[in-house]
Amino acid sequence: MSPTVLIQGGTVVNADREFRADVLCIDGKIAAVGPDLEVPAGATRLDASGQYLLPGGIDPHTHMQLPFMGTVTMDDFFTGTAAGLAGGTTSIIDFVIPNPQQPLMEAYRTWRDWAQKSAGDYSFHVAVTWWADSVREDMGTLVRDEGVNSFKHFMAYKNAIMCDDETLVNSFKRALELGAMPTVHAENGELVFLLQQEVAKMGITGPEGHPLSRPPMVEAEAAQRAIAIADVLNVPIYVVHVSCTEAADAIARARARGQRVYGEVLAGHLVIDDSVYRHPDFATAAAHVMSPPFRPKGHQENLWRHLQAGNLHTTATDHCTFCAAQKAAGRNAFAQIPNGCGGIEERMAVIWDAGVNTGRLTPSEFVAVTSANAAKLFNIYPRKGSISVGADADLVLWDPAGTKTLSAKTQFSKGDYNIFEGRTVRGVPSHTLSAGKIVFASGDLRAEQGAGQYIKRPPFAPAFGALAKRTADLAPTAVTR
Amino acid sequence: MSPTVLIQGGTVVNADREFRADVLCIDGKIAAVGPDLEVPAGATRLDASGQYLLPGGIDPHTHMQLPFMGTVTMDDFFTGTAAGLAGGTTSIIDFVIPNPQQPLMEAYRTWRDWAQKSAGDYSFHVAVTWWADSVREDMGTLVRDEGVNSFKHFMAYKNAIMCDDETLVNSFKRALELGAMPTVHAENGELVFLLQQEVAKMGITGPEGHPLSRPPMVEAEAAQRAIAIADVLNVPIYVVHVSCTEAADAIARARARGQRVYGEVLAGHLVIDDSVYRHPDFATAAAHVMSPPFRPKGHQENLWRHLQAGNLHTTATDHCTFCAAQKAAGRNAFAQIPNGCGGIEERMAVIWDAGVNTGRLTPSEFVAVTSANAAKLFNIYPRKGSISVGADADLVLWDPAGTKTLSAKTQFSKGDYNIFEGRTVRGVPSHTLSAGKIVFASGDLRAEQGAGQYIKRPPFAPAFGALAKRTADLAPTAVTR
Amino acid sequence: MSPTVLIQGGTVVNADREFRADVLCIDGKIAAVGPDLEVPAGATRLDASGQYLLPGGIDPHTHMQLPFMGTVTMDDFFTGTAAGLAGGTTSIIDFVIPNPQQPLMEAYRTWRDWAQKSAGDYSFHVAVTWWADSVREDMGTLVRDEGVNSFKHFMAYKNAIMCDDETLVNSFKRALELGAMPTVHAENGELVFLLQQEVAKMGITGPEGHPLSRPPMVEAEAAQRAIAIADVLNVPIYVVHVSCTEAADAIARARARGQRVYGEVLAGHLVIDDSVYRHPDFATAAAHVMSPPFRPKGHQENLWRHLQAGNLHTTATDHCTFCAAQKAAGRNAFAQIPNGCGGIEERMAVIWDAGVNTGRLTPSEFVAVTSANAAKLFNIYPRKGSISVGADADLVLWDPAGTKTLSAKTQFSKGDYNIFEGRTVRGVPSHTLSAGKIVFASGDLRAEQGAGQYIKRPPFAPAFGALAKRTADLAPTAVTR
Amino acid sequence: MSPTVLIQGGTVVNADREFRADVLCIDGKIAAVGPDLEVPAGATRLDASGQYLLPGGIDPHTHMQLPFMGTVTMDDFFTGTAAGLAGGTTSIIDFVIPNPQQPLMEAYRTWRDWAQKSAGDYSFHVAVTWWADSVREDMGTLVRDEGVNSFKHFMAYKNAIMCDDETLVNSFKRALELGAMPTVHAENGELVFLLQQEVAKMGITGPEGHPLSRPPMVEAEAAQRAIAIADVLNVPIYVVHVSCTEAADAIARARARGQRVYGEVLAGHLVIDDSVYRHPDFATAAAHVMSPPFRPKGHQENLWRHLQAGNLHTTATDHCTFCAAQKAAGRNAFAQIPNGCGGIEERMAVIWDAGVNTGRLTPSEFVAVTSANAAKLFNIYPRKGSISVGADADLVLWDPAGTKTLSAKTQFSKGDYNIFEGRTVRGVPSHTLSAGKIVFASGDLRAEQGAGQYIKRPPFAPAFGALAKRTADLAPTAVTR
Repeated sequence: MSPTVLIQGGTVVNADREFRADVLCIDGKIAAVGPDLEVPAGATRLDASGQYLLPGGIDPHTHMQLPFMGTVTMDDFFTGTAAGLAGGTTSIIDFVIPNPQQPLMEAYRTWRDWAQKSAGDYSFHVAVTWWADSVREDMGTLVRDEGVNSFKHFMAYKNAIMCDDETLVNSFKRALELGAMPTVHAENGELVFLLQQEVAKMGITGPEGHPLSRPPMVEAEAAQRAIAIADVLNVPIYVVHVSCTEAADAIARARARGQRVYGEVLAGHLVIDDSVYRHPDFATAAAHVMSPPFRPKGHQENLWRHLQAGNLHTTATDHCTFCAAQKAAGRNAFAQIPNGCGGIEERMAVIWDAGVNTGRLTPSEFVAVTSANAAKLFNIYPRKGSISVGADADLVLWDPAGTKTLSAKTQFSKGDYNIFEGRTVRGVPSHTLSAGKIVFASGDLRAEQGAGQYIKRPPFAPAFGALAKRTADLAPTAVTR
Repeated sequence: MSPTVLIQGGTVVNADREFRADVLCIDGKIAAVGPDLEVPAGATRLDASGQYLLPGGIDPHTHMQLPFMGTVTMDDFFTGTAAGLAGGTTSIIDFVIPNPQQPLMEAYRTWRDWAQKSAGDYSFHVAVTWWADSVREDMGTLVRDEGVNSFKHFMAYKNAIMCDDETLVNSFKRALELGAMPTVHAENGELVFLLQQEVAKMGITGPEGHPLSRPPMVEAEAAQRAIAIADVLNVPIYVVHVSCTEAADAIARARARGQRVYGEVLAGHLVIDDSVYRHPDFATAAAHVMSPPFRPKGHQENLWRHLQAGNLHTTATDHCTFCAAQKAAGRNAFAQIPNGCGGIEERMAVIWDAGVNTGRLTPSEFVAVTSANAAKLFNIYPRKGSISVGADADLVLWDPAGTKTLSAKTQFSKGDYNIFEGRTVRGVPSHTLSAGKIVFASGDLRAEQGAGQYIKRPPFAPAFGALAKRTADLAPTAVTR
Repeated sequence: MSPTVLIQGGTVVNADREFRADVLCIDGKIAAVGPDLEVPAGATRLDASGQYLLPGGIDPHTHMQLPFMGTVTMDDFFTGTAAGLAGGTTSIIDFVIPNPQQPLMEAYRTWRDWAQKSAGDYSFHVAVTWWADSVREDMGTLVRDEGVNSFKHFMAYKNAIMCDDETLVNSFKRALELGAMPTVHAENGELVFLLQQEVAKMGITGPEGHPLSRPPMVEAEAAQRAIAIADVLNVPIYVVHVSCTEAADAIARARARGQRVYGEVLAGHLVIDDSVYRHPDFATAAAHVMSPPFRPKGHQENLWRHLQAGNLHTTATDHCTFCAAQKAAGRNAFAQIPNGCGGIEERMAVIWDAGVNTGRLTPSEFVAVTSANAAKLFNIYPRKGSISVGADADLVLWDPAGTKTLSAKTQFSKGDYNIFEGRTVRGVPSHTLSAGKIVFASGDLRAEQGAGQYIKRPPFAPAFGALAKRTADLAPTAVTR
Repeated sequence: MSPTVLIQGGTVVNADREFRADVLCIDGKIAAVGPDLEVPAGATRLDASGQYLLPGGIDPHTHMQLPFMGTVTMDDFFTGTAAGLAGGTTSIIDFVIPNPQQPLMEAYRTWRDWAQKSAGDYSFHVAVTWWADSVREDMGTLVRDEGVNSFKHFMAYKNAIMCDDETLVNSFKRALELGAMPTVHAENGELVFLLQQEVAKMGITGPEGHPLSRPPMVEAEAAQRAIAIADVLNVPIYVVHVSCTEAADAIARARARGQRVYGEVLAGHLVIDDSVYRHPDFATAAAHVMSPPFRPKGHQENLWRHLQAGNLHTTATDHCTFCAAQKAAGRNAFAQIPNGCGGIEERMAVIWDAGVNTGRLTPSEFVAVTSANAAKLFNIYPRKGSISVGADADLVLWDPAGTKTLSAKTQFSKGDYNIFEGRTVRGVPSHTLSAGKIVFASGDLRAEQGAGQYIKRPPFAPAFGALAKRTADLAPTAVTR
């Protein structure tokens, strides 16, 4: 189906090493990796000399076409995944978010339906927003029959989708049985709820109130709590969008205790600080409203350090775009501003520029944090996240000398704002292949609606392969009396 | 009323220093401290040569006459406080624990009534076990009219007196307004609830199941959560019975961030490890069932270190005695064993022996952690916790050479068990004075029912005097747009 | 000799509490502290209403009249101590710094001679800059006969006064025997030596090169090393001028292990950041050259937090003033700029303003970190650092409402620069008493040359009273074989 | 030369994943990896069904044929590497240790000569034990011409091979220029020197004195110092034989700052505690004398946790065998006992049993810590440490069900002691291939003297690829004045 493509003369970068090799793609798969491959008849040839050849990016945290706070995000599954392809990201893991009391399977089917139009491959974390026996059963169905191997828990958004501890405990335990990864949005919803009122009482109604209502300790508390629960239940855990020093430190401490804790950081949190919320222009300030918020200077440096150290494992975007008209819903009350920012198109370039060019990350480490680690954690490695024979032919030709100035004016993503506006990056995708097809070439986006495939993810990822018993202190056996 | 007593030739130990001085007590107060005081007519003279003279101990955590888990503790306010006097402890802070939905004032009056018979001085923390506007109002009444300046929150005991986060947040905020110290019993009740069932499913029904159902991270989680909430709300916080490394570390980390966090450690947790729960005799094992449980070897050392470092501030006992017959209620299900151990009589000697004799603590530091710090935190210093003119004449003549073997057989406390059974300590009280009266003299206990006074504690202890604004990151002012 | 002075109506602040009382000073000592004291005949009365009455400040780190880097500081013992009195500081602990090979006793006598002219009380840490049996003996003489109870070790200044590990180990061990506190200037001299050359090779010759040659890890390394050596030898240790997060964290970690580690922080390091070194004016930039240097923004906040937490104990200045002409020696090579800044006159007001007014410190904590802690650590408490009967009548009437704009133009200290230039503080001394004499009154400095007394400090300060054996892991006894 | 070998039906384990595949070895290299490979004519077939196929182990820390403390180790390069093959270890990195003042090249040639007889592949770290321009030059020659990419520094062994800070600083800087990894034996030699005397003064002459003279903080200090120096100079660093919590914590802290620090842990330190030194039999106690020593219980657990967390990266043995007669040299003075223990033969099985069987490590993580990480750090990946086409055919068929009781009686290693004596492990090598030859088969060791090859290691391993500039605080540019 897909044409045969031979990529010649590039430097292949995998998470474990880089090496010079040609790469041959046939029928959507990588058929050969090696020096001086023979050119098959009819093959399209791509010259990668002077370029790196990277596994296609995986963005493990997006919200396309999300109905949220009374509106729907600008990017649907087509435009959002297409923007990803333009930026070198060939797979996403989006979220199914049932309303409380809504059956998980029902919500899952809704999202699957919406996602049919995707231009790149996609998969879903499913949120557990309430608890009942039927939820427990649906979790089993999703894992066994639908290729879901991760469940999301919102610790914020009181009176909406927030989980209480009882639900967390039950769901984590169920996830462990199923071999599925529990993930958490870590913010203490009770504190946010109170602080939103307190800040409002102070007469602060603009976007500058947003970070005041969600200070770092609100996130750190929830991260610590979820990690502790996972520790006690002996289940791995994945903390999404770690935005602050205190939460990253909590992960590092748990890891140093030998716990299987994984952290995700957003491209935006790595390079943007909270001064944006004090921008005199409401639209600009509001465009940055997302949760957790951007943090004071100092946090960015620490997030990089934890990413370098292996305490944070994946990079994502939480891509969730609302336009100025939508954001204006919170004109008089920051808590009403729809939460969300874009980034799927810029993630790879921003992280390369701020990470590899500065000497923080090697190209292999870049691959680890932009695709391979996510693939391993969500058990689709080496099909995704690796340039190796048999893997999906999701590839990026990366031009380390190419530059680009990021802007809403030139982006493919819908929406009228770009949180990286004006940032010039060095290191950009020249070509992207998805399932062996050239979907982006030197600025020309050839995304095809519906070409993306749903990615089934099997349970019991490697992280489940080694869960040391933590009860050495007191053997869990009965004493005979 | 009280006789005039002159104590001669001892070494006075206060938290800031020790010095040779005589101490004169008149009418229940310290009237003079100095070298070679003149002997007033009619004065009783006590020879303190070779002895230390310490402020009477304050046990900030006791439960006398407590109705709990369907029974009532063995020690009532008379026998419990009398046992304290025998051990050098002249004041207690006990707990008023309303049932959920019970008005705080009603519960408070009940406890005040019960406590009339006390032989030593007493005061009350009041527990907030539910939330409503009437609770908020009663908190105000208690602070303004009744001399209560601390409120307790149980984060464990699901389906009974456990606070959820909503109550914690509201109550902490209210406490801050009132200048009252929020305190927490830090254990995650949801996890305990689940683990009790899990352990039972493993076929473990004996006391050895108790610590398995409450591992250290269950405590650490709750401590971290309470501390984070206090940090966000900018209120001081006091964590009771810190029993494990992880919780003490959490306090140390918060303190290093400049937060006003205070920790209490029990004499038992400092010297007893969890091997007790595997004792082949049920009664022995059950006698040690309390929450948090005794911890694996290693934790004790770390608790001492944090006490030395000033990350833990007070020592207490959680004195709450049940006899073997009461403990037998949990013969077939550890979760039914009434939780509680004694200690008020032994605390001072155990800590002196294991703390001062080993070189961990100076005598002044001993005074700090057995009386002065509690007095400061609960705002009754220097009336209590200090040997200075004008202070209450609550004093202990401490014989550093005296020895004693602790035992249920010789204790004054009611109950048939002593968790320090067989431990020989060096350093014991030779005489105790309460309000200027000699209530214990060389083994002779002269406690008088009803002689104890209720201690009113004013709000706004020094810890409230400096609560640095934590919002430097983003000034909480509105942006003009 | 001294007149009788009665200070009426103020709020006495000690490290443990504050209370309303009059204070009576007779013959240089505090004769009475209490409410409504009778006015003795002939007494001078000072009205302290609306004011705090504080123990006179102790600056435990000054260098008056120091010959250093080929020149001598501007302030001698008279002008320097006089400036201290104007700022509320009534005692200093300066340094005797022998040249390598110079007998300690010889250097000590030189400094004692120079200090005769002091207007306030003074004492000396003696530096151990080399090692020999004679040094060991002189240390004994100094402790036994001369009232020295602390020894200083420079871990920087290679090829000059730098100690190697062999000297550190020997001197710490000797100090332990003598009951004297080892103190360290913590910077790795080898790294500084190398970095000074490296920075020069980069073509950086101006003061901006100074912090580049002494980054925080240079200090943290030395602090960690000294602390580890002290831990192994089981001797208390005091780290002078802790300037950065990493070094303060090292102290906090050691303290959490139960080690007796004490830290000093300078007023300057608490409020000034390293941007000063990039000032376009050489004289301004050079005026800030001291070691350790001022640190990047962020460190100041962390130093405050550790001071609040009790991980740092004293505040000092390292007062060591050079004028612009002296600083100009390093016009073309930053390493030649004489190291040193002033501050003795401003310390109390700067710390009150930035510490108490902001809610970081209570007035009692202010007293702890400006006098009482130093007095305890160096064993002159309660003679110094306390307002109590029998103490030296070194007192400050502190006007919390008074304001002042700090400036070289108005300072009493010699030197032509003020590192706090232009800073307006609220909270200033209105009157200072030294040994019962009013030496500063409403801006009028009445310092008297030679009025200061040498302070003998006995060995075995309280910190020596409890040095827990750290060998529990393996009992240090021989195995019989 | 090597026969063609086809290994069928096993589960290939690489550091990134495991998968079912056959592996074909031709001429000492891996020629194919894939399912159901065709059987080449004349190929030897090995049935690996039910077994794992692992990359041959790399022991990055051995001392074969070492002249030390007046004697020479029992195992020479033949017997030592042969023992390695029997245990699944196919490569070693040994040490060239020049005497102070001896030219590095001279020592290097001596060791190369000794190693000719090796049965398995080998390489050398070269120790820098003194400093001079000629040392700097020899370092360059070794890197450029001899395939050395790592240099060792002993921070202990005063008056012998100990480096002072000046040498450390110069050598680290030189290593950075050359792209070679500095490594350190982290113990503070001054403290060891003093403590050996102090312990002797206490009358302790037996092996129980050994750990008393080298407590954990002696190691932690040196680790912290080396790490800090590396941080300041911006060079990666590798800490050998991390034996205690405090040193591992230091590495974890540095990594969390983003620093490139790597740690090695010995199989022995992971499972043996310091009670061995108090064994009543001198020979047994002395057999365990090595530096750093085995540590008190508790440290082992923490080392495992840091290994799981990725704060420790490689496992080694420090294989250095002395027999009882040699150890007897220290019969009357523990400091005279030749330091060293064996382990090359047992490492893989001990770590599998205590790591994989307990759920601490996945098989892939086992490969990472026993070969792949060492190969990456010392830049011989994927030639070593990987089962992939083109790699050296160094392979182990690992039988996860096989058991063995470790004992000196049955070991191939010379020497009369086995520190793992009596330990029964589950998971053992059934066959080992070195360069494609079957050198160990079901207990039959077919090691061939001289068959091992010297491994040249190129400089600039990946860790050098990303050394973030750490001077963001103050840009290292001159200020124009």
